[in-house]
Amino acid sequence: MSETLVIAIDAMGGDNAPEAVIEGVARVAKKDKSVFFFLFGDEAKIKKLADANRLPDDRYKIHPTTDVIKGDAKPSIAVRSGRESSMWKAIMSVRNGYAKAIVSAGNTGALMAMSKICLGTLSGIDRPAIAAVLPSAAGPIVALDLGANAECNSQNLIEFSIMGHVLHHVLFQTEKPSIGLLNIGSEETKGRDEIREAASVLKGLEGKINFVGFVEGNDICAGKSNVIVTDGFSGNVALKTIEGTAKFITSMMKKTVKHSLFASIGFLIAKPALRQLKKKMDPRMYNGAMFLGLNGISVKSHGGADSFAFACAIESAIRMARNDLCNKIKNELKHVMDVDVPDISGEE
Amino acid sequence: MSETLVIAIDAMGGDNAPEAVIEGVARVAKKDKSVFFFLFGDEAKIKKLADANRLPDDRYKIHPTTDVIKGDAKPSIAVRSGRESSMWKAIMSVRNGYAKAIVSAGNTGALMAMSKICLGTLSGIDRPAIAAVLPSAAGPIVALDLGANAECNSQNLIEFSIMGHVLHHVLFQTEKPSIGLLNIGSEETKGRDEIREAASVLKGLEGKINFVGFVEGNDICAGKSNVIVTDGFSGNVALKTIEGTAKFITSMMKKTVKHSLFASIGFLIAKPALRQLKKKMDPRMYNGAMFLGLNGISVKSHGGADSFAFACAIESAIRMARNDLCNKIKNELKHVMDVDVPDISGEE
Repeated sequence: MSETLVIAIDAMGGDNAPEAVIEGVARVAKKDKSVFFFLFGDEAKIKKLADANRLPDDRYKIHPTTDVIKGDAKPSIAVRSGRESSMWKAIMSVRNGYAKAIVSAGNTGALMAMSKICLGTLSGIDRPAIAAVLPSAAGPIVALDLGANAECNSQNLIEFSIMGHVLHHVLFQTEKPSIGLLNIGSEETKGRDEIREAASVLKGLEGKINFVGFVEGNDICAGKSNVIVTDGFSGNVALKTIEGTAKFITSMMKKTVKHSLFASIGFLIAKPALRQLKKKMDPRMYNGAMFLGLNGISVKSHGGADSFAFACAIESAIRMARNDLCNKIKNELKHVMDVDVPDISGEE
Repeated sequence: MSETLVIAIDAMGGDNAPEAVIEGVARVAKKDKSVFFFLFGDEAKIKKLADANRLPDDRYKIHPTTDVIKGDAKPSIAVRSGRESSMWKAIMSVRNGYAKAIVSAGNTGALMAMSKICLGTLSGIDRPAIAAVLPSAAGPIVALDLGANAECNSQNLIEFSIMGHVLHHVLFQTEKPSIGLLNIGSEETKGRDEIREAASVLKGLEGKINFVGFVEGNDICAGKSNVIVTDGFSGNVALKTIEGTAKFITSMMKKTVKHSLFASIGFLIAKPALRQLKKKMDPRMYNGAMFLGLNGISVKSHGGADSFAFACAIESAIRMARNDLCNKIKNELKHVMDVDVPDISGEE
């Protein structure tokens, strides 16, 4: 049996906290017997929910906290005045080595800022990034940055490439994940300076990293590369555009069915197969944005996550922790970058 | 009856030229009796196709050309050595006032570069942009820039907003089209400097322009604003991400149907309704990227367009020409910006 792994949970963050959070914890506890949970938040509420969800007493410890970071709180203010919050305390338990990862469905900006302050940035990383797993025609892909850095230089993009490479390997055991740089054309002359610069450096790392060149917006869902690397602005736009397009198409189909008797009957017959498709595409399975480049594992669940989605975010955190993601990133940075990559940014 | 409008057609550009092009011209000619076509290209081929498609002799004039701009030609080289091409000659007929608009399915970069050189940039516009019409849950929207400018400053974004405002009004008779700036959050502190700067200027233009603030990737297909304004990098990524996502979902559905007897039967019954949905969402209807900010109308059809799609691009060009788009943009620029915006381009 594997060693017990401690995961810290911000039980009070998110729209459906603490109910969906504790139910999510119970789901994971049932499947994975070697995880122990630190639950930060309202003791009485958590205890009651743990019992209701049959989370055994010996699988968790409640760390009572009184303060909760509000969903609309400014990160800068949350960081200063939120030191008694469930979020801060949960992150601190990772910093102090008591837990191996923190999962929260709370305020994204606050979680990012607090994680950065408490855990610190990995040596060799200029800027941490937000990564997520997305479905594609060729299987799950990793995309980053999804919003931490609205602007990036070539050095950032190179570091994101290495972190994405390690993450895809850790999550899906891919031997040499292919890395694509998001651009607006596949020709070498296209796009912004920093992207072309990053591409020329990544090309030079052949053998160490499987860089496949530029990819475009339509290549994301096609799964042209295992990892999609881009700045936080374009990444965020792309991610939300995928969500919006999927929602639009689904709602158009629903409208069609509603307005046609034949379509209604047809869809009723097709329902079992469609349900399977829906299951396969379920966005809840891809829940969990991962902050990469920190000295510790911090995962952000969607604020509106239900217990199933929250459990998926915990499971990502577990996989990252069990596979020692942070050290692997550190080692890979050393291995990939030691020879020929100067610090281009010139910044600290 | 309305005055005869002359439209110049690059008959040789695109994967399916000249066949799909001339068939597209014939489609439009049949519906709209007051349009006359200048067809640039291989005289013998065009004549044969015109006859085959029953395009009446008195509805077109062939301008024989011998050279064709290749799809993979570098714009800079095309501009220098392509002066005898169907594309260049067709654009020149607009510049010289013989035609009111040019439509081509050829090399995008070359068409943009040639259009810029031949037609010139509108006074008051720093950088032309590529715009397109997209379907959304709230009806057709206009999005720009979709790839002409990988980087933009706040002034560019403001000019795009005004051009998008005029284009939506001209194409769909919207009285006060709502304008949204693409960003990665709706809070005022989010995003890049140039976007926040542009937003603060646009807010000051209240009454003249209906600026509704920041929109995000998921708001595009939701149709949260009539016009989506962004830089050419994010715009291109978003556009291609929409295409990729739609393709992915459609192919997943097809796979599901193929692998399930019940789903096959169900979809067979639902087919008439689904066909209607497909018709409503047909990307061919949205064919035609429009170069805005030039002293003349230039429309780029998709390279792989069939005759129906090419006809749609022509129809957009006709609407733009009939509604005197360029002068309207010029006047609107004056009207909206009169107080504090000097002529940046210095060109006529």
